[in-house]
Amino acid sequence: MMGKVYLIGAGPGDPELLTVKAVRILKSADIVLHDALVDDSILALVRPHALLVDVGKRAGDRRIAQEGINRMLVDFAASAAIMVRLKGGDPLIFGRAAEEMAALRRAGIEFEIVPGITAAVAASAQAQIPLTDRDGPSSVVFLTAQYAVGRSSTEIAQFAAAGSTLAIYMPNGRYAEIAHQVIAARLSPHTPCLVVSNATRPNQELHWTDVSGLVSVSLPASPALLIIGTVARRRDEMISAVSVFYATDKTSFQTIHGEL
Amino acid sequence: MMGKVYLIGAGPGDPELLTVKAVRILKSADIVLHDALVDDSILALVRPHALLVDVGKRAGDRRIAQEGINRMLVDFAASAAIMVRLKGGDPLIFGRAAEEMAALRRAGIEFEIVPGITAAVAASAQAQIPLTDRDGPSSVVFLTAQYAVGRSSTEIAQFAAAGSTLAIYMPNGRYAEIAHQVIAARLSPHTPCLVVSNATRPNQELHWTDVSGLVSVSLPASPALLIIGTVARRRDEMISAVSVFYATDKTSFQTIHGEL
Repeated sequence: MMGKVYLIGAGPGDPELLTVKAVRILKSADIVLHDALVDDSILALVRPHALLVDVGKRAGDRRIAQEGINRMLVDFAASAAIMVRLKGGDPLIFGRAAEEMAALRRAGIEFEIVPGITAAVAASAQAQIPLTDRDGPSSVVFLTAQYAVGRSSTEIAQFAAAGSTLAIYMPNGRYAEIAHQVIAARLSPHTPCLVVSNATRPNQELHWTDVSGLVSVSLPASPALLIIGTVARRRDEMISAVSVFYATDKTSFQTIHGEL
Repeated sequence: MMGKVYLIGAGPGDPELLTVKAVRILKSADIVLHDALVDDSILALVRPHALLVDVGKRAGDRRIAQEGINRMLVDFAASAAIMVRLKGGDPLIFGRAAEEMAALRRAGIEFEIVPGITAAVAASAQAQIPLTDRDGPSSVVFLTAQYAVGRSSTEIAQFAAAGSTLAIYMPNGRYAEIAHQVIAARLSPHTPCLVVSNATRPNQELHWTDVSGLVSVSLPASPALLIIGTVARRRDEMISAVSVFYATDKTSFQTIHGEL
């Protein structure tokens, strides 16, 4: 028997932000290969006798290489009716799903993608700021810090000149380098910035600053998302709303297993 | 009593792509103001005695203006413990949530955002193509056709030069104009393009073409999403997988009410 593989987005952390479809498939899975960042409360949805493999785990200093994950996907698909590859956020945005899909296609294995809430969308929801605005930026760019820092500042300048909101994934503490890049790209040092770490998890933090503050302020390394642009301007009215949200919402985080 | 307002993303259409949280809140809502594009199978989750208002409806030739929706949100919040503003996709990406949040803040009404699966993410999942790729584009830009056509082609050129995938929302049939813009921006006419209409709905269509094909091929107007970039290259292996997915998945679309 050849199984079917589901590449599923686990969303930002809060298990209630899984899609209904993701929950249904996770509950029927025989094998689940998951990233390190997937919350335990999500993994608890998997049946007790299913095989759970943490492919984000470090063995000593080494992680399982992407090629190893691709091979596991193909090998395990032969012994599982329903196999899940569970990734943080959405599989198709910085999720390296392209390589896994290519391996599955080469092996002739049927698969399906179940989208998830990507980090930029979750972070903006928690901060109650839009990513696009009718009277402001009419586009948003999703990029990684590695890209922002590794390329010429001309490319960042291209986005900045177009007036896009920048949503920078995996800043990994490289805030100063990012600030230098966007300043070299002629973005104002006063451009508002927001760093959201552990979005939708009980230990979520929001840090409001501006491009110059990216250099001077101590900011969380990872997992975090950095939003640069006029939409990231802090509003006083907003803060209380965010706190209230937090106080009321921990319950739903804890009670999800009863609900589902 | 002053109620709480939830701005909820309804996702692309398939009710199973709602988040668990969206379903929980919809089921307890007293009033739901929804867009025209929200599927009936999603609205059926709302309690029978709750008030459902289609604010996307046209009265004669006129739609309810955004200002009218803002006022309804504030006025109704006084009479509902739980009030939902339900939007297609995600509220913070081309959802005009900025204006609604501003109105709620001015009125001192507590609100919360529940993110949804945005169209670009749903379309790429259905087509089984990534939006970013380790060996290809390392960024993706979300923009609207109105923006793409209305601005100088220099701005589109900026994105194109950076090698980003372009995810163009609401093409509204303006494919030829978009093609002229991206060609003026020096993108190759052979750059792959994919149009996904009614993503995740039973009447979903995928159209694979290239930039030159945007001018000559007959393409669906709306609701649709246009992806331009190397990721949109069609793979032969893929097509059968997409068809199989379709055949198996109609059941889940129909049976969701039993499941939830």
